[in-house]
Amino acid sequence: MSYCIEERGCFNSLEYRLYFKNSEGQYISPFHDIPLFADEAKNVFNMVVEVPRWTNAKMEIATKEPLNPIKQDVKKGKLRFVANIFPHKGYIWNYGALPQTWEDPQHCDSDTGCKGDNDPIDVCEIGSKVLARGDVVKVKVLGTLALIDEGETDWKIIAINVEDPEAANYNSIDDVRRLKPGYLEATVDWFRRYKVPDGKPENQFAFGGDFKDKDFAINAIGNTHEHWKALVGKEHGTEICCKNISVTSSPFICTEGDAKAVVEVQPASGGSVSLPSEVDRWYYFQKN
Amino acid sequence: MSYCIEERGCFNSLEYRLYFKNSEGQYISPFHDIPLFADEAKNVFNMVVEVPRWTNAKMEIATKEPLNPIKQDVKKGKLRFVANIFPHKGYIWNYGALPQTWEDPQHCDSDTGCKGDNDPIDVCEIGSKVLARGDVVKVKVLGTLALIDEGETDWKIIAINVEDPEAANYNSIDDVRRLKPGYLEATVDWFRRYKVPDGKPENQFAFGGDFKDKDFAINAIGNTHEHWKALVGKEHGTEICCKNISVTSSPFICTEGDAKAVVEVQPASGGSVSLPSEVDRWYYFQKN
Repeated sequence: MSYCIEERGCFNSLEYRLYFKNSEGQYISPFHDIPLFADEAKNVFNMVVEVPRWTNAKMEIATKEPLNPIKQDVKKGKLRFVANIFPHKGYIWNYGALPQTWEDPQHCDSDTGCKGDNDPIDVCEIGSKVLARGDVVKVKVLGTLALIDEGETDWKIIAINVEDPEAANYNSIDDVRRLKPGYLEATVDWFRRYKVPDGKPENQFAFGGDFKDKDFAINAIGNTHEHWKALVGKEHGTEICCKNISVTSSPFICTEGDAKAVVEVQPASGGSVSLPSEVDRWYYFQKN
Repeated sequence: MSYCIEERGCFNSLEYRLYFKNSEGQYISPFHDIPLFADEAKNVFNMVVEVPRWTNAKMEIATKEPLNPIKQDVKKGKLRFVANIFPHKGYIWNYGALPQTWEDPQHCDSDTGCKGDNDPIDVCEIGSKVLARGDVVKVKVLGTLALIDEGETDWKIIAINVEDPEAANYNSIDDVRRLKPGYLEATVDWFRRYKVPDGKPENQFAFGGDFKDKDFAINAIGNTHEHWKALVGKEHGTEICCKNISVTSSPFICTEGDAKAVVEVQPASGGSVSLPSEVDRWYYFQKN
């Protein structure tokens, strides 16, 4: 299955949305209609790219909107950009989400002791190519970091695009440590500090900031997949929008026409808004 | 005096050129016709921005072409991009040159024991704003690093845009060390390794890689200004093109019409060439 995207609204405006279509041209939800597993053996996962490496706009699957387009996060009425924390420029991986997963905010994780953050599980893709927003790529999972973000469990899955020229060399978190020296340390450092310029405290980590390996990560993904199944499988009182066109067991399944009607009322794409120069700023902190 | 630019050829093609005009609309050479000093007291310098922060294309004043437009460096017939050396993305400052300076390849520097690299003196501008290619900005000089690049002296002047909101706080190299922790170390690290991905050895530095302060830097600039004066002041056998419209003592001065004729034959601007994906690659080295 291949996917394509359709932009609506002006980029870097509050109206901007990125909708997804399947290869038959039907509008779909990237949250619910793209399968988590990309192979029969369940070793390869689909990843939805929300933020290309080295960019700053905090783009994410809009879990509360019909068909869950990608949109830019908004805080106090303003578009949200992550700060550049020296020596880093924007996000330092291709960042995105695994479809058909959900970190349940009612469920207390037995490893971290914290509840979920109400989003699909996040992925840091470490391949050499800069991916595009809205790309759906197949990834190999290598490990995970357990971020505790304002008291919520927020797994960060470390993975590599299976089409990366060096993908065959990456089969564990230790391979990342060995072949990309400094990258895992930078990853911890990045997540620890990324909200500090917004006036927030440093983030914490479970396991003392250690990375867990592939098997642990795949188990965590499996848990969030089960929580997603429960979410999409029956009526619930949450704000999460589960409208989909393919989950046959779901009460939220809709017709192709219903899905099309969601997108048709959106503003046309095009135009551009210049970024606030604040986005360029580099923040410097002494390393701990 | 303010300046504007005129692009010719397609960006990221071999034909791309950026020509400069003065506020009267006359074509000028950014190498020869923009004054080095931007104030009466000779404390503020003009800087020509060649490479915006976080970009990779090695753009530079074409010293051997009439009117010295900015063009992308070419090596073995291919456009040159600097590699991304982890954790850095492209150039980590706004990078450019001081006009009316020249590092004389016939002159052996008494401090470094090496000859000049045949280019205007280079500047790393450390302000918070990402400047644009072709910007001419006024900078305060804070210090310098003495890079020995393949055996040639290549001063890297550390400076800050006088219009930076925090410019008043920066008056010495120690202010950079204190207010942007890690930036000077990153600067040495960047210049040491930037040619390693091209198969070259690490670069060396005079003074053990220590930065020299403002007075030393201003003296080095003064020396290169004198070498430029000698270059532009009389006929010489070098390939450097000294065509200019304002240096009255120079045999290379030309008319407004002559200058216009240089640009008129250049291809129109526009179009775009997609970058090779190799430019995205991040190189990882163990720190020494």
